[in-house]
Amino acid sequence: MKNLNFSPLKKLEIILGGEHQAFATDLLDRAGVKGYTIFNNLSGKGRHGFHEGHLMFNEDDVLIMIVAAVPEKRVNDILTGFAPFYNEHSGVVFISDIQVTRLVKFSD
Amino acid sequence: MKNLNFSPLKKLEIILGGEHQAFATDLLDRAGVKGYTIFNNLSGKGRHGFHEGHLMFNEDDVLIMIVAAVPEKRVNDILTGFAPFYNEHSGVVFISDIQVTRLVKFSD
Amino acid sequence: MKNLNFSPLKKLEIILGGEHQAFATDLLDRAGVKGYTIFNNLSGKGRHGFHEGHLMFNEDDVLIMIVAAVPEKRVNDILTGFAPFYNEHSGVVFISDIQVTRLVKFSD
Repeated sequence: MKNLNFSPLKKLEIILGGEHQAFATDLLDRAGVKGYTIFNNLSGKGRHGFHEGHLMFNEDDVLIMIVAAVPEKRVNDILTGFAPFYNEHSGVVFISDIQVTRLVKFSD
Repeated sequence: MKNLNFSPLKKLEIILGGEHQAFATDLLDRAGVKGYTIFNNLSGKGRHGFHEGHLMFNEDDVLIMIVAAVPEKRVNDILTGFAPFYNEHSGVVFISDIQVTRLVKFSD
Repeated sequence: MKNLNFSPLKKLEIILGGEHQAFATDLLDRAGVKGYTIFNNLSGKGRHGFHEGHLMFNEDDVLIMIVAAVPEKRVNDILTGFAPFYNEHSGVVFISDIQVTRLVKFSD
């Protein structure tokens, strides 16, 4: 309890069409990312128009956000991996600074 | 691939009652915001009590979060636009620093 | 309107199994946190394997994220309160810097 180790990491918020979830998680797995959280059934408006989130039909239309915390040194490789995808599909990756208190989950 | 352009932006996380979604997205549209993502069916506790997220009934009670990435110069106008709303309704806007690798989607 | 007061706060993004929601919100309530927002039905991969988000059965398996904005001075106490929990359960807390324009909701 007396050792709250704060470790700086980069948070990646990867927003993309839900039908591409396996592509994205495979890329993260291969990049050595140990954990991520997925937000389902998002709606969004982007340059490809408005995507409406709904649960029952057309799951392919909904957006998801995959959140992963990674060491800064991994960010460029991961983003380079996603670059060809985002040249073809709508979505975006937000990069921000976070701290976590349990680094062990996110590093090798 | 060799040109990963990191561009600093401000992320706005706009949390408000789902029944006010059109108001918020209209305000963003008029402010020139090119894209946003909507998280539906959130629960929350604020000064107006506890709002329970549920899908089937009383959609008006659920909260949503609209996430938009905007240039810093736009933040004040957008927040000023939301200020009268938040004087009357529960909710909040979180502002934070992010980077994205595709600025073109978010600027004029 | 001419007084948009930007106040720096820490955003806590508390990701944990949905069955532990009451534990987490009780801890936040006791720590004097005035408001939070809950994201339901998340999926995730962590060191305990893959948790699939779904609505109909096994609600206990889904993850939630509780987001709270707190003054920096409160962060250590809250995280210390969560530390024993995260020694036993999967999940994580992300800490990041945000600004809000309505401090009154988040301070005593």
